[in-house]
Amino acid sequence: MKKLGFLSKFFKTWIDEYNNGSRYGLKGKILFEKQSNFQKITIVQTEKYGKALLLDDAWMTAEYEEKNYHECLVHPALTGSKSIEKILIIGGGDGGAARECFRYEEVKNIDLVEIDKVVIDVSKNFLPSIGGNAWNDKRLKIHITDGITWVKNIQNNIYDVIIVDGSDPKGPAQALFDQTFLKNCHRILKEEGVFAMQTESPHAFEKEHIEIVKLIRKIFGFADPCYGHVAIYPSGFWSWTFAAKDSPRYRNPFAPRLKKINGNFTIWSIRWQKASFNLIPSYLEEKLKNE
Amino acid sequence: MKKLGFLSKFFKTWIDEYNNGSRYGLKGKILFEKQSNFQKITIVQTEKYGKALLLDDAWMTAEYEEKNYHECLVHPALTGSKSIEKILIIGGGDGGAARECFRYEEVKNIDLVEIDKVVIDVSKNFLPSIGGNAWNDKRLKIHITDGITWVKNIQNNIYDVIIVDGSDPKGPAQALFDQTFLKNCHRILKEEGVFAMQTESPHAFEKEHIEIVKLIRKIFGFADPCYGHVAIYPSGFWSWTFAAKDSPRYRNPFAPRLKKINGNFTIWSIRWQKASFNLIPSYLEEKLKNE
Repeated sequence: MKKLGFLSKFFKTWIDEYNNGSRYGLKGKILFEKQSNFQKITIVQTEKYGKALLLDDAWMTAEYEEKNYHECLVHPALTGSKSIEKILIIGGGDGGAARECFRYEEVKNIDLVEIDKVVIDVSKNFLPSIGGNAWNDKRLKIHITDGITWVKNIQNNIYDVIIVDGSDPKGPAQALFDQTFLKNCHRILKEEGVFAMQTESPHAFEKEHIEIVKLIRKIFGFADPCYGHVAIYPSGFWSWTFAAKDSPRYRNPFAPRLKKINGNFTIWSIRWQKASFNLIPSYLEEKLKNE
Repeated sequence: MKKLGFLSKFFKTWIDEYNNGSRYGLKGKILFEKQSNFQKITIVQTEKYGKALLLDDAWMTAEYEEKNYHECLVHPALTGSKSIEKILIIGGGDGGAARECFRYEEVKNIDLVEIDKVVIDVSKNFLPSIGGNAWNDKRLKIHITDGITWVKNIQNNIYDVIIVDGSDPKGPAQALFDQTFLKNCHRILKEEGVFAMQTESPHAFEKEHIEIVKLIRKIFGFADPCYGHVAIYPSGFWSWTFAAKDSPRYRNPFAPRLKKINGNFTIWSIRWQKASFNLIPSYLEEKLKNE
């Protein structure tokens, strides 16, 4: 991709993400490419999924291939937390996680803490459907700063829900997989709140997946991964891990809230959610238990 | 891949399967390539998954990426059928489905009906771990012939389990997605038996998936897809559909049999199976109901 960068602005070409002897490519034309202070940011007009975003040559999201990520990251948390008035999103600069949160009228405030303003700017510009009305919602407060520092400076027991929507554990997202960060998330989460985090592919990043799930479980007390499918990510098999302090409340949707969620779902349903916490390959179930 | 075919025998290169504006590639060296009477057959030594088989430039199976296909195709059928003495496998020339069936000592006979002898020969030669001991098991009867004709010529109510382990609905596997073939499968299946079939990706081949699930349900009475993950197939999100005449017995593993299954599982478990019948995206649940 790097070598073809210049030509790709004029002609369709294959743009691939490489992962350990495999690659996944989409055919398209590069609309935008820029090295920000944190990462290389690319927007591609793909044939298959509309406009798509890459960070450091890794596919992040695409107009027609994002709901299976965002719906899965958000709804087990927001249907499970006792209250959902005050939400923190770390990362999530494409706006998709915020959009899903705003389906719930109970939400009063979202702090969206994104380290890289360019990600927000290109998302608003090229991928407006992903953030949707969230960008115009007065309950959304955007903070362009480091999530690590943000959680360090917040008082105890402030947020009902914390959603960590970062990229892979390298580059700017690396410290999100660290226990100092997670301990602060635990500290600032309310007693009956829910923590949610994308936790990589159990197939393409098995070691990272197992380590982060165990670390989250150790820090929060209750934590379980759910498994689903994101075609543009390495191996297509992805995970999100939910955690809580008082019980595995993320597994038990709060019934009165369910009736009031706005809009239709593409992926998520109670049936899907229940299954996604159980679609665990048997070898992995063993490893998450014993290692 | 076609253009690089000659050089790929000497050097590692990227070998990609193309699907509608996307591609999935593995890095490797071609060990064998031949146009049989039915299809192009390629064996690649990949970096990531060991030796792998392609048919007509589509990834079929690989040494270290096959259990998530074969375990999912076989066990909901063999744990659900009342008897499992007499089994028919259509396709399955890599031997993986037969290997999984032989974990059950109750199995007395498997008719493996594969149209292309070259697939069996290269699988035995290059991918011996996939068939494993099945190739030496006297209960396995290999028939090199057309599955369509085979099911036409069998008497009513003969098989306890029928497993259709074919490739995509084009080339030699096309007629396996046809109602004439499926009606014969229904006719030759015992009243308390189970029918199993790989039914494509609900994501990459949505139309084909929906059509075949509905057709199987219409013909057998009871049919449900289960969903899982095969990294080397388009989108990584895959389905297998199970059907029966008397009840959805493929959803209810027969308890006394479970204790006697030989060997350990990598993917399948009762928990996994139950989840896999429910991990259906909400839009697809709607489409499989109403269309």
